[in-house]
Amino acid sequence: MMQFVVQSQRTFMATRLSLRLMRSSMTQRASFSFSAMKWEGGVSMVQGASRGIGLEFVKQLLENNEKGHVVATCRNPRGATGLHDLKNKFVERLSILPLDVTVESTIEESAKSIREKYGSLNLLVNASGILSLPDALQPETTLTKVQKSSLMLAYEVNAVGPILVIKHMWPLLKIGGGSGTERDVAIVANISARVGSIGDNRLGGWHSYRASKSALNQLNKTISVEFARKKDPVISILLHPGTVDTDLSRPFQRNVPEGKLFTKEYSVQKLLHIIDNVKSSDNGKFFAWDGQEIPW
Amino acid sequence: MMQFVVQSQRTFMATRLSLRLMRSSMTQRASFSFSAMKWEGGVSMVQGASRGIGLEFVKQLLENNEKGHVVATCRNPRGATGLHDLKNKFVERLSILPLDVTVESTIEESAKSIREKYGSLNLLVNASGILSLPDALQPETTLTKVQKSSLMLAYEVNAVGPILVIKHMWPLLKIGGGSGTERDVAIVANISARVGSIGDNRLGGWHSYRASKSALNQLNKTISVEFARKKDPVISILLHPGTVDTDLSRPFQRNVPEGKLFTKEYSVQKLLHIIDNVKSSDNGKFFAWDGQEIPW
Repeated sequence: MMQFVVQSQRTFMATRLSLRLMRSSMTQRASFSFSAMKWEGGVSMVQGASRGIGLEFVKQLLENNEKGHVVATCRNPRGATGLHDLKNKFVERLSILPLDVTVESTIEESAKSIREKYGSLNLLVNASGILSLPDALQPETTLTKVQKSSLMLAYEVNAVGPILVIKHMWPLLKIGGGSGTERDVAIVANISARVGSIGDNRLGGWHSYRASKSALNQLNKTISVEFARKKDPVISILLHPGTVDTDLSRPFQRNVPEGKLFTKEYSVQKLLHIIDNVKSSDNGKFFAWDGQEIPW
Repeated sequence: MMQFVVQSQRTFMATRLSLRLMRSSMTQRASFSFSAMKWEGGVSMVQGASRGIGLEFVKQLLENNEKGHVVATCRNPRGATGLHDLKNKFVERLSILPLDVTVESTIEESAKSIREKYGSLNLLVNASGILSLPDALQPETTLTKVQKSSLMLAYEVNAVGPILVIKHMWPLLKIGGGSGTERDVAIVANISARVGSIGDNRLGGWHSYRASKSALNQLNKTISVEFARKKDPVISILLHPGTVDTDLSRPFQRNVPEGKLFTKEYSVQKLLHIIDNVKSSDNGKFFAWDGQEIPW
């Protein structure tokens, strides 16, 4: 069971066997479970795919799922050289669409294109996010530096954007939940961040980013309740990728402990592993790259 | 100890005595503790004071603290008839200032006025909040109804507004922490809501309001960490007032169970009790009207 491999990282060697037996019986009792094998085929959408974690998701989804199609969206497809490189290699299985999470009409247009071309979605990865932007947003080191415009911008991009994408892709995900792959459900994976945890906030600072991610976490929980109540075949989760060596984190990598700065290849491999093994009881939850649940 | 009275409501009659003894010793071990007696005098600011919970805070602070001064702020002082009634009764001890949390310059102007007139603040109650507004914001019953403009408006008023008020009042609170009353600290009390809890979200819906309050909770936690690290004499907490019979809740009172719709008099009495008895270890925390801590 792939599920076990993720969870076993939390355990000590000595207790591994007994846990393996326990978990094995737990898994059998769950209402349903998946394995990565069932992920073959289907249509995945990666939103925020021009670089960093999003681009790596597109790459690994194309490489690891030979029958799968990927829709990669980003604000400016023309400038997305990484996506063009992949397009040259995976001509038939990759579509690139323009989508700016701050412009709802572009989200609606993408949904329309995907509906016309594929008719459904099996996986949606919300990977876009903003931490800093010259002259507009800097992670705040003190309350004195908190600006209204920064708070609003981070919220618009990190919380409002992803939820609007889910809103417009929801009908396609409901169809994808029962078709296209052997899985019973479609998955929404929202890239959040551990600093969005309120309970885990011991350092302070980064007001705009933290608040936007806490709000994203709440929005994800809110929609997961509706999906479950309506028995929709859709599960929505939150993922913390770790501190990954990307453009987003680059200005802030100085204090990352040795061995804790991940390559995007490693992080996305871990995150896809979580996605591949998600259970219905995981709906709404917040997982770190190693499969551990993060407190709210 | 007043502190005990709040906490004892959580306990059963049978265990009351043993808990009383236990808590009494715990309180003595705390780094410092307060009683309501020490609240005499000082300057309190209530932001969002024209009606509802805010207006009731102004009233009770004036009535119960005979030496205390109150600064009441609201968007439109001219239309605030409830405040004018109080002003007629408490001429010398009540100041009314215009403050719109969505217009930062009005917050700065208020801070300037308070500095000139009083020089410090001992208590700041952030009571403003928005749940619904005709043609702009309605608590959402489904993801399909989620609108960007509603998400942004709720965030601007419920999360960004209070944090900007704290930002500009912070210098005055630092002074008030060591002067004006016998208390060692100034208090910031932010009116949040249980529906802002992610862990407690079992019903879904109300996306805009929930997300804005989760963000407020994160912002409060973030600043509390800074206050503690800098050893500022300021404590910032979150309060859930219960469902209170005010204009804000009126359109949504239908499903409130019998006995769970509070008068504003009762709710504010409970919230002031929490404020009066707050401890340094409460900094950053989220309390319901009955003193129980609410999960994030």
